[in-house]
Amino acid sequence: MPIITLTTDFGLKDHFVGAVKGAILKEFSEASIIDISHQITPFSITEAAYVVKNSYQNFPEGTIHIIGVDSEISQENKPIAIQLENQFFICSDNGIISMITNEIKPDKIVEITIQNKMEYRFTVLDIFVKVACHIARGGTLEVIGNKIDKIKKLYEIQPSINTEQNQIVGSVIYIDNFGNVISNITKSIFQNIGKGRDFEVIARNYTFTKINKKYNDIVDFSIPIDKRQDDGKRLAIFNSANFLEISMYRSNLKTVGGAANLLGLNYRDNITIRFK
Amino acid sequence: MPIITLTTDFGLKDHFVGAVKGAILKEFSEASIIDISHQITPFSITEAAYVVKNSYQNFPEGTIHIIGVDSEISQENKPIAIQLENQFFICSDNGIISMITNEIKPDKIVEITIQNKMEYRFTVLDIFVKVACHIARGGTLEVIGNKIDKIKKLYEIQPSINTEQNQIVGSVIYIDNFGNVISNITKSIFQNIGKGRDFEVIARNYTFTKINKKYNDIVDFSIPIDKRQDDGKRLAIFNSANFLEISMYRSNLKTVGGAANLLGLNYRDNITIRFK
Amino acid sequence: MPIITLTTDFGLKDHFVGAVKGAILKEFSEASIIDISHQITPFSITEAAYVVKNSYQNFPEGTIHIIGVDSEISQENKPIAIQLENQFFICSDNGIISMITNEIKPDKIVEITIQNKMEYRFTVLDIFVKVACHIARGGTLEVIGNKIDKIKKLYEIQPSINTEQNQIVGSVIYIDNFGNVISNITKSIFQNIGKGRDFEVIARNYTFTKINKKYNDIVDFSIPIDKRQDDGKRLAIFNSANFLEISMYRSNLKTVGGAANLLGLNYRDNITIRFK
Repeated sequence: MPIITLTTDFGLKDHFVGAVKGAILKEFSEASIIDISHQITPFSITEAAYVVKNSYQNFPEGTIHIIGVDSEISQENKPIAIQLENQFFICSDNGIISMITNEIKPDKIVEITIQNKMEYRFTVLDIFVKVACHIARGGTLEVIGNKIDKIKKLYEIQPSINTEQNQIVGSVIYIDNFGNVISNITKSIFQNIGKGRDFEVIARNYTFTKINKKYNDIVDFSIPIDKRQDDGKRLAIFNSANFLEISMYRSNLKTVGGAANLLGLNYRDNITIRFK
Repeated sequence: MPIITLTTDFGLKDHFVGAVKGAILKEFSEASIIDISHQITPFSITEAAYVVKNSYQNFPEGTIHIIGVDSEISQENKPIAIQLENQFFICSDNGIISMITNEIKPDKIVEITIQNKMEYRFTVLDIFVKVACHIARGGTLEVIGNKIDKIKKLYEIQPSINTEQNQIVGSVIYIDNFGNVISNITKSIFQNIGKGRDFEVIARNYTFTKINKKYNDIVDFSIPIDKRQDDGKRLAIFNSANFLEISMYRSNLKTVGGAANLLGLNYRDNITIRFK
Repeated sequence: MPIITLTTDFGLKDHFVGAVKGAILKEFSEASIIDISHQITPFSITEAAYVVKNSYQNFPEGTIHIIGVDSEISQENKPIAIQLENQFFICSDNGIISMITNEIKPDKIVEITIQNKMEYRFTVLDIFVKVACHIARGGTLEVIGNKIDKIKKLYEIQPSINTEQNQIVGSVIYIDNFGNVISNITKSIFQNIGKGRDFEVIARNYTFTKINKKYNDIVDFSIPIDKRQDDGKRLAIFNSANFLEISMYRSNLKTVGGAANLLGLNYRDNITIRFK
């Protein structure tokens, strides 16, 4: 059963997601449809890129990923299909692929052209579904479009490093369900620049001199459990996707708050690492 | 694999949806369960009708749609099963089917009676699941209920046309994930009454003299991209479901706002078209 | 197709759920993945227990339930796998199982040990997925851990009964999508203690002398429908999971409000039954 995943900003209330799933199953009844997220902030290709980047490598070879964010077709926003590490991505050429794959070169890119010969309702429902089912049936990319070499690049997701190589200035790219604030500073950039030196992480008014491996590294298990006051403690961590994250231990964005609102950190705010 | 879809107002946090899916798979393990929406506003059959109406035709023949909104059984709210265009609908006789199918006559309607011979927990979990699995196994409607001819009709979803045939007064029936305001005026009513005449669309204090085909029709692509100020522009459009919609370009209901809150439009507010 | 269900506090926006589903399908492509809930309040094992307790019995034998709430591994929070009534549960030994199974003894419990020999990203993604797929392929629990006899017990979910046996003091354990307030008083406790006596249910300033079987028991169908004013009426009911619930008829937590906010009832507040 070929897997088709969906990442969109459609939300879960409207008919859009149901309509797309119906259309996939009508076109190719053996498809296995997996939701990655439909809660992407409307039109946010940065968020969509973060979510897809940290999901896709977990899927089996041959998986087809539909990304339905900012996908209305125009002369500046063409639909594309990409083959990358034996998986497939169908999305718009709006820079999202450059943010998903910054270090990996796609094996093949085509600009989709099937929309030129048909009436369609919305891009994902009629164009992306048709392309996904074509690939799922074993069809080649060349049949649904023209091979191209270049796609739109967006670099906003990259942190900057000073010439002395002792400072990395990153920025907040994502805030997760727990209110954790995620920067664009990866563990590998940190290690390549830091080379084991001491450092401080600076996020607004807060400084961290340690980056944890696990959230509960901050817990002192020798203290009796009913005497501990760890909930809400600030910490820096490389998260499971290997990005530097500012977190509050066992926080809850909807009640007591999380790192994002309690520390006053928001999208695009700077997170800086200074090496000694 | 027969497809059973779910449209409910259960939300996604509670155990209701999980319990229903478990019950389907216990009764009929080959079922393919597809969520259409569980975020319908509690008890809103108008919203449920809009969502199902715009999803179901995308599904393959034989698909079975469970609609679990306002489905507690009473002497006034009987469970029914409908065959329509080779698909099946299981819901309550509360008017929802008349809003889904206003122009199409169901092929068969039965009033479900199996609940009379059993204890049940809630209607969807025990009654609708049993009926859906019966149909999925190829069973006929007559086995689970009695054929009837009439179902409850609700007309609130229809716009009104004046006797001079130069004005359509519709109303807001749905607000989507992007804050777009959707009226009950379809493209076909507009074309049948307007017959190509000039018109104005009036929504509260705003007037539109054009109805777009695509959201980005309002973009002037000859202006350099960094000089454009299109985000947030108001527009009227026939949406992908062919309903007249008032939208703000690339809006976001959760941050800057969408047409609904920025233009002050809410459910049941009037949207009027005047032909010249 | 073995069924693997997911109950987590990951939310539906982030990449976590997508990553976990991809990892399951990469490890065991025939798995049928069913979402129970990803909207559990972060770290709330009480909520997770309520949701799983009221879902799992609906699933077929052999179903494997992953519970990803409060699952970061520490010396105090070990991963476990449980066999119970021919279903399987993979979670942390944080008390959640004692709240799911208060009256049922698990058939087998193992403390999972596979994490000791591997690097992993987060517990659910790498440990729980591997264990679930092992069980789905027919593997035994002993292979992935060591048999144990005891698990952590949490009793907070139990109501208290006075020595005169004429009063049950329960507390609010869950608030559902409709704003209904659910207590930990089950129908069987009520019947065992009450033995048919008259009673009052006291919830804050409100008293009920009847517990309904259906929500619409409060409707007087002899009154013409346009004269009735039932929406928003308070009622006590044994809900479909057989817990005592305080409800407002056809309420909507997001608009007019539900029992929770309108009656001022919150998590852990007392609900008392006094027998005469």
